[in-house]
Amino acid sequence: MIDETASGVYTIACTPFMPDGALDLGSVDTMVDFYAECGATGLTILGMMGEAGKLSAAESEAVIRRVTARTDLPVVVGVSSPGFAAMEALSKTAMDAGAAGVMIAPAGGLKTDGQIIDYYHNVAETVADAPWVLQDFPLATNVVIPTEVILRIVADCPGCVMLKHEDWPGLAKISALRAASDAGDARRISILCGNAGLFLVEEMGRGADGAMTGFAYPEMMRDVVSRMQAGDETAARDIFDAYLPLVRYESQPGLGLSVRKHILAQRGAIAHPTVRRPGGGLAAAAQAEVATMIARQEARLAALA
Amino acid sequence: MIDETASGVYTIACTPFMPDGALDLGSVDTMVDFYAECGATGLTILGMMGEAGKLSAAESEAVIRRVTARTDLPVVVGVSSPGFAAMEALSKTAMDAGAAGVMIAPAGGLKTDGQIIDYYHNVAETVADAPWVLQDFPLATNVVIPTEVILRIVADCPGCVMLKHEDWPGLAKISALRAASDAGDARRISILCGNAGLFLVEEMGRGADGAMTGFAYPEMMRDVVSRMQAGDETAARDIFDAYLPLVRYESQPGLGLSVRKHILAQRGAIAHPTVRRPGGGLAAAAQAEVATMIARQEARLAALA
Amino acid sequence: MIDETASGVYTIACTPFMPDGALDLGSVDTMVDFYAECGATGLTILGMMGEAGKLSAAESEAVIRRVTARTDLPVVVGVSSPGFAAMEALSKTAMDAGAAGVMIAPAGGLKTDGQIIDYYHNVAETVADAPWVLQDFPLATNVVIPTEVILRIVADCPGCVMLKHEDWPGLAKISALRAASDAGDARRISILCGNAGLFLVEEMGRGADGAMTGFAYPEMMRDVVSRMQAGDETAARDIFDAYLPLVRYESQPGLGLSVRKHILAQRGAIAHPTVRRPGGGLAAAAQAEVATMIARQEARLAALA
Amino acid sequence: MIDETASGVYTIACTPFMPDGALDLGSVDTMVDFYAECGATGLTILGMMGEAGKLSAAESEAVIRRVTARTDLPVVVGVSSPGFAAMEALSKTAMDAGAAGVMIAPAGGLKTDGQIIDYYHNVAETVADAPWVLQDFPLATNVVIPTEVILRIVADCPGCVMLKHEDWPGLAKISALRAASDAGDARRISILCGNAGLFLVEEMGRGADGAMTGFAYPEMMRDVVSRMQAGDETAARDIFDAYLPLVRYESQPGLGLSVRKHILAQRGAIAHPTVRRPGGGLAAAAQAEVATMIARQEARLAALA
Repeated sequence: MIDETASGVYTIACTPFMPDGALDLGSVDTMVDFYAECGATGLTILGMMGEAGKLSAAESEAVIRRVTARTDLPVVVGVSSPGFAAMEALSKTAMDAGAAGVMIAPAGGLKTDGQIIDYYHNVAETVADAPWVLQDFPLATNVVIPTEVILRIVADCPGCVMLKHEDWPGLAKISALRAASDAGDARRISILCGNAGLFLVEEMGRGADGAMTGFAYPEMMRDVVSRMQAGDETAARDIFDAYLPLVRYESQPGLGLSVRKHILAQRGAIAHPTVRRPGGGLAAAAQAEVATMIARQEARLAALA
Repeated sequence: MIDETASGVYTIACTPFMPDGALDLGSVDTMVDFYAECGATGLTILGMMGEAGKLSAAESEAVIRRVTARTDLPVVVGVSSPGFAAMEALSKTAMDAGAAGVMIAPAGGLKTDGQIIDYYHNVAETVADAPWVLQDFPLATNVVIPTEVILRIVADCPGCVMLKHEDWPGLAKISALRAASDAGDARRISILCGNAGLFLVEEMGRGADGAMTGFAYPEMMRDVVSRMQAGDETAARDIFDAYLPLVRYESQPGLGLSVRKHILAQRGAIAHPTVRRPGGGLAAAAQAEVATMIARQEARLAALA
Repeated sequence: MIDETASGVYTIACTPFMPDGALDLGSVDTMVDFYAECGATGLTILGMMGEAGKLSAAESEAVIRRVTARTDLPVVVGVSSPGFAAMEALSKTAMDAGAAGVMIAPAGGLKTDGQIIDYYHNVAETVADAPWVLQDFPLATNVVIPTEVILRIVADCPGCVMLKHEDWPGLAKISALRAASDAGDARRISILCGNAGLFLVEEMGRGADGAMTGFAYPEMMRDVVSRMQAGDETAARDIFDAYLPLVRYESQPGLGLSVRKHILAQRGAIAHPTVRRPGGGLAAAAQAEVATMIARQEARLAALA
Repeated sequence: MIDETASGVYTIACTPFMPDGALDLGSVDTMVDFYAECGATGLTILGMMGEAGKLSAAESEAVIRRVTARTDLPVVVGVSSPGFAAMEALSKTAMDAGAAGVMIAPAGGLKTDGQIIDYYHNVAETVADAPWVLQDFPLATNVVIPTEVILRIVADCPGCVMLKHEDWPGLAKISALRAASDAGDARRISILCGNAGLFLVEEMGRGADGAMTGFAYPEMMRDVVSRMQAGDETAARDIFDAYLPLVRYESQPGLGLSVRKHILAQRGAIAHPTVRRPGGGLAAAAQAEVATMIARQEARLAALA
């Protein structure tokens, strides 16, 4: 089970598909192995970049079972749903299959502080005993969660053990949350950062515990997190900067997933780069840009070694 | 099966719950009987006001089976889903259970004309042989569908046989769609109107074929539609105006469902007025307002008789 | 100057234009006289329905001066602006010209409770000594202001003397605000209601002090408000119900202003029904619907008399 | 006057303020000189990052006059306004003062393709003889403009000579626009790219003519654009990558302007880093992060030289 001490790199796993759009469960295995070899501390499945919304209930269950059967790493399962009944069913499936926790983004349409707090009170009741991750991703959800609201949820809901941080800009929020727990005014929870890793060095510097994102080179996250934990910001920045052109390119909303799956397929992690409809492949021009950046990235990493 | 000639009143059915939030399948039966007695031509289940988003996949299936087993009226099933895999599964369940068609609102986040058209091309492929209803409800979906886009979808997708019209303001759209089919430029599809019935007289006057909404007095829709079909606008307006204070009150977003279930429970259609969380009951002040309006409505209908 | 005791009917004034879109200052005079004759207690100019956003700064100033020169009724001026500098300039112009107060809707894009509170702190500093009205209109602004936030603003900002209430549904908010001031927990401010008057009877019943909206028959508001103040809800509802079909028709977003100006021109209040681009005239079908409703309305009012 | 052949670097100029929020016209002069020395081909003032919305009409005019008096570089003036009357007044002021063109982002709330096209038809009529720039920035405006709509506007409006491109992801849009003009199906207009410069190399590779953004080191844009125009992508990427950590940091919505003004003040371009309320200064932690990045950037540039 995940708890407030979780740290390191929880890779946001993609969901592999066959060229015709069917689930590719064989690639689930190779992908899980790939992430583990690249230094993942844990996995997060059925997140937004895992195309969770495009799966049927039966497919979601199949993915959960395949992943948890393949690895001993802690697995967090995204269970965001339009309603609490579906969330409860999926959460139960996940925990019964051996997941280490669940993750929930706020429902679209929440506006006021009070609505957000009420929502997570309902979430806490719905997922019952499962430890859970609050996903704070305003660019995708259009729900802005102020620091005070996070602190209130943390105070009210003991099951909330982690923040998936991807507010943007969000560095000040990390500082504020850490100031609150450092002052003894709040329980300290784990903060793992998303946003494609685009601010990972600064996030670690502000007090984050690691990364939870799906950049196609998880070793970047592993190395940046470990260097920052070791207090060597210069080394962390050297590595980070080498990958930054590609991190930036993969951070494009929507298109980023096509980039990511293209690279994961090239690296052998999955068999096909297929994004389920309505998605799309990577145009030739984009493939060429990616190839250029990878070549430069490798040269720069070699120079660092 | 529904087709382009459908007309009359397709009542948007609520989903009955027990006080603890569990499905109340017994009330499904009484509700179906009630709607039939009030003059429904058909039923639409699992729409937004049917709290579809709050049901698990298993609960949705249970509701579909219970309703189709209870009635010979044509049943349209809302199958809007975040992704096409879930839509396909729910659509298949519905049609196998004897539904007469399915209904799909656009996914949130669609912006451009082209995105909306592509979406419904995918819908058409997903629901396969099922005749389907395009639900046009910008206030709820935040997706605005211009008349030309509807016409394009109608042209491209033979399975699209009906528009659930609830754009607001939307009278000009009905006129434009009818002008296009009258001129032979477009296939004429059925147009049934939602928006709580708030513009039903004018909608019929512009060329709609009936109503598809869930006002707690379906007999209003039955009588207004039949009077307008008979060409007696004065009689239609007399009836409509008698109900209008309550129609207006029930049209309040969100709160309206509590009003509706409160009245349906009072009328014996369902056992409990429960709205599933995050919903809520009807405050005493609102109950009193509703009681006043019902008393006035009955007096006025009596005076008309 | 307006203060917390303001009550009655503050008519939302339209801005009259010539057929070519130029300001029609002559019609400003006739319109002001018309509103006064129909029983307006005050006027609100340069609101959303006053097409404020379509005026240049010089035009706004001309309208303010013309209105305040024509009447001794208290005039509230909408000064909502994208930034505080423009708000300050317009507010100063208004108060120098003899306005009784200013009105400010929240800037689009405000999300959290704290952002809204901060915004109105800045408003209070910006409008300085002018008494001001908080306009709460989520359908138009996309900003949802919870009751607690309103109470906080009222507590922090002595200059906030009135709420223009047009949340929807919003009856519970009126009840909550009145409960707070009745209990001595909050300063009691004036609440005048908008939303095209669609819920005016219930709003008065919940504790509102009157109406602030621009329905083309201000006498409806005058009579409903006075009857409710006199405790005669039945008489108030009789009058309200007579006008309701047209109130409902005029409440259509966007289109409603064309309806309103069409009727005001017919009634002689303004010379031309012109809505500035991007607006539009009223289609023939809509004009016919309006004519039918007016005829029925007159018959029904005659029967009441 | 700008025309379809414009290329190079149009720096998005900030608006300098005194610590108390008053306009700092003296800094306007130093800033204009600074941009020219850094290689700007032109200037764009009163854009979103120029805090245009926070200025009164009089202040906007003062800024326009001061800038155009100071430089012979072509000056594009942002004239986006809630209504066309204000747009017309500001556009006239700008052109009379010697501006080279105006820039207009779509009004918030535009949804359908047809609404956007109608809007720009009105824009074209409003700005009359001024050559104008279509600003395509969905992240800020929430209006998504498909490629076909841009092509339609270009076809209908001869005054539209430039696209300020900041869709995200937007590389495919540049490719599509260039494919259309290369095929002779569309007039070729200038494309200058915003988005803080985050994709400048790729944008140039896809056919853009330069940059229009306000990164605090305009020399980056100058050098990347000139290297790409010279066909030396490797040199362009070397320079770009050196600045990328800071480009990324400055691209944070909202906060980015504080970063930019902080650096511009440090570089002596403006006297004070003040952002007008509701803005804010740069926290100490952020200042430290910026300092670290600048030191690394200088080292890396030195190594390139």
